[in-house]
Amino acid sequence: MTDIASQSAARPNLVGPLIDEARLWDRHETLGAIGGTPKGGVNRQALTGEEVEARKLIAGWAKGLGFTIATDPIGNMFIRREGTDPDAAPVVSGSHIDTQPTGGKYDGAYGVLAAFEVLEALERNGVKTRRPLEVGIWMNEEGSRFQPGCVGSGVFTGRKNLDEILAMTDRAGISVRDALQPCLAATPDATRRPLGTPIHAYLEAHIEQGPRLEAEGLQIGVVTSIQGMRRFEIDIEGEEAHAGTTPRANRKDALSAAVRVIAALEELMHDPDDVVRFTVGRMEVSPGSPNVVPGHVHFTIDFRHPDMEVLKQRGDAVERIAKEKAAPCPVTVKGFGTNPPVHFPKQVVDTVRRAAERLELPSMDMPSGAGHDAGLISAVAPVGMVFVPCEKGISHNELERASASDLAAGARVLAEAMVELANS
Amino acid sequence: MTDIASQSAARPNLVGPLIDEARLWDRHETLGAIGGTPKGGVNRQALTGEEVEARKLIAGWAKGLGFTIATDPIGNMFIRREGTDPDAAPVVSGSHIDTQPTGGKYDGAYGVLAAFEVLEALERNGVKTRRPLEVGIWMNEEGSRFQPGCVGSGVFTGRKNLDEILAMTDRAGISVRDALQPCLAATPDATRRPLGTPIHAYLEAHIEQGPRLEAEGLQIGVVTSIQGMRRFEIDIEGEEAHAGTTPRANRKDALSAAVRVIAALEELMHDPDDVVRFTVGRMEVSPGSPNVVPGHVHFTIDFRHPDMEVLKQRGDAVERIAKEKAAPCPVTVKGFGTNPPVHFPKQVVDTVRRAAERLELPSMDMPSGAGHDAGLISAVAPVGMVFVPCEKGISHNELERASASDLAAGARVLAEAMVELANS
Repeated sequence: MTDIASQSAARPNLVGPLIDEARLWDRHETLGAIGGTPKGGVNRQALTGEEVEARKLIAGWAKGLGFTIATDPIGNMFIRREGTDPDAAPVVSGSHIDTQPTGGKYDGAYGVLAAFEVLEALERNGVKTRRPLEVGIWMNEEGSRFQPGCVGSGVFTGRKNLDEILAMTDRAGISVRDALQPCLAATPDATRRPLGTPIHAYLEAHIEQGPRLEAEGLQIGVVTSIQGMRRFEIDIEGEEAHAGTTPRANRKDALSAAVRVIAALEELMHDPDDVVRFTVGRMEVSPGSPNVVPGHVHFTIDFRHPDMEVLKQRGDAVERIAKEKAAPCPVTVKGFGTNPPVHFPKQVVDTVRRAAERLELPSMDMPSGAGHDAGLISAVAPVGMVFVPCEKGISHNELERASASDLAAGARVLAEAMVELANS
Repeated sequence: MTDIASQSAARPNLVGPLIDEARLWDRHETLGAIGGTPKGGVNRQALTGEEVEARKLIAGWAKGLGFTIATDPIGNMFIRREGTDPDAAPVVSGSHIDTQPTGGKYDGAYGVLAAFEVLEALERNGVKTRRPLEVGIWMNEEGSRFQPGCVGSGVFTGRKNLDEILAMTDRAGISVRDALQPCLAATPDATRRPLGTPIHAYLEAHIEQGPRLEAEGLQIGVVTSIQGMRRFEIDIEGEEAHAGTTPRANRKDALSAAVRVIAALEELMHDPDDVVRFTVGRMEVSPGSPNVVPGHVHFTIDFRHPDMEVLKQRGDAVERIAKEKAAPCPVTVKGFGTNPPVHFPKQVVDTVRRAAERLELPSMDMPSGAGHDAGLISAVAPVGMVFVPCEKGISHNELERASASDLAAGARVLAEAMVELANS
């Protein structure tokens, strides 16, 4: 414990305990009511009327505490608490307030509300920091209404093109550009800041969306990386034929070919350590008549791994195997590039781990299975993440659950880490 | 050739050559224009306005030749040419005039038009028969608008219940009972006859809908049987989970289970002789999001074979294998009973084969891969079928093609066989 004592020597008082568990929980209930579903979930998709309402709610809280608000051209929103050094780049923490159509109250919202709670707790207790602290609310992380997701953080860092993203449309043909206007109008007092405004360090609190913390009985996950991902879309061309009359030798059965391809890919992706994530989540079979041999099958592949080499080797084998196994049916394999794994800098990971230690909250280091805005922001700032458990790992689901105590624990770690970084 | 000579000794003149190839071809073009699609196919679903028009067209031809028309309570339509014995039960031949939504000009229509051509050729050439000859047009064979199909012949034979079939509705909620009215009104002069009016023998000419005759270079298939069929619907319950965060060990991936099940069933159904017909034609994967582990998969099985024992043994193994391979996902297997194979009586099969021989048209014996109205009618009368080739075996498709010469050859065989049966 000597190390920890020396680390906290510069700051005689812990800030983590200032976090108000009940207030943080209530804020989740209040925000979760906007777009709340009868099953207890949330449908608050990007740039909808629900998001407008959510922005007004949070902006109201911020103004009540004397924080200022800024927005940027892609609609990211920042809530700022000034530091003692007006010229220092801020420590930013946040996440997103958009949800899946049948999402929960915690995915994204927790990262925003935990960061807000940190600012509020420090403000109400008069704790000053050298650097400003900001809550960052990144636009359209989920990619439900407008695809793809993570575009607020992506445009912020320059990885995605502003004009292209503004031109994206939803199923009704409404563009991001048009849908953004009422969201920006929701905070009329906000200053406008350019994309890519410097960030000293970025932290993101999030529910794990996986089962590991719960299984280990731990409240805190110190995230060391976000695994990389490759996506593919596979199209197999068969030949429609009469199910009763066409001998197997004369068939080009696209579904039968798809079954061979997927079985072979599952073998390719076999991993005794259970680190590989391989999912065929969407499959469309046409014409879809019980007595017609399928003429076409379309399916998606979602393949993730923390190791770039594994992503490359196994991902590169997908097309060859698909072509081999689908024969005699021709196959088209469309790849969507590689999201490389993001390894968080040791300095930030250590800061988060030390914060948990100071608070005597047992933690484990872990990679993030899901992608997060933090992965994008890592291109322009050192980033780190704090995970808390969610029930049975269920997320992207109206049944998503987290406990008030776990949410508060994560916010306490976040408070410690943000203050340490803001005073560095 | 002695046998053939002796067979035809009773009838010094062949009737087959009386068939008018050009007239038969033109009738296909004329009927095919009703519901004709831009791609050269036909969309004339059961009991639609197109069927009304088709009934009027055929009734007009019949009246022009002095034939009479009758309908029955389920909307089957009969065109009758009297024989010399007014009390004898008729020899009936026909098929159906409804099509798949993207069907062709020959499936069903050929059986009706070939039979009509037989009646017309005999009438125009003054050839009398002892028994009456009738064209039978069975209502809703395809089962596209109203499911299931083969209900006109099914109700005729008592295998299906009249009131239940009349109560069936299409997707718009229109019942067979209501849709039938304009079809019956299309032939106001028709007499009404009860269901199951006796038939001496039933013949059906049809395109093969498979590739064998074309491959063998033959114009005539002597159908010996209709293979049996079992249908299943399989539901696999998985658990929706995040594709990035959920380890394989924690997944219940319904699609992965379905792939295992189908691969194992394909093994079960493996047949070096290529007689088994096994098809998974419809598959629905939900929620169908690329980054969500599938929580549910539904798929259909269409399994056919000419041998009841094979249908029983392999069909009975489906549920066990599905449950075994889908584990840990629970499975529901719903079976829809067995359509047993129908073996046509030797007497009729021999009559058809002899007819081809008399006309010096080389033929082959073959089972029918598809189901036909003849299979239902076999419950109440001796039945037989004549197949002619269709291009590449393609059917239930706007690309369905048959040649004028092959269609005429089949009609000639039909004429010979009908007359032989009508004079017996």
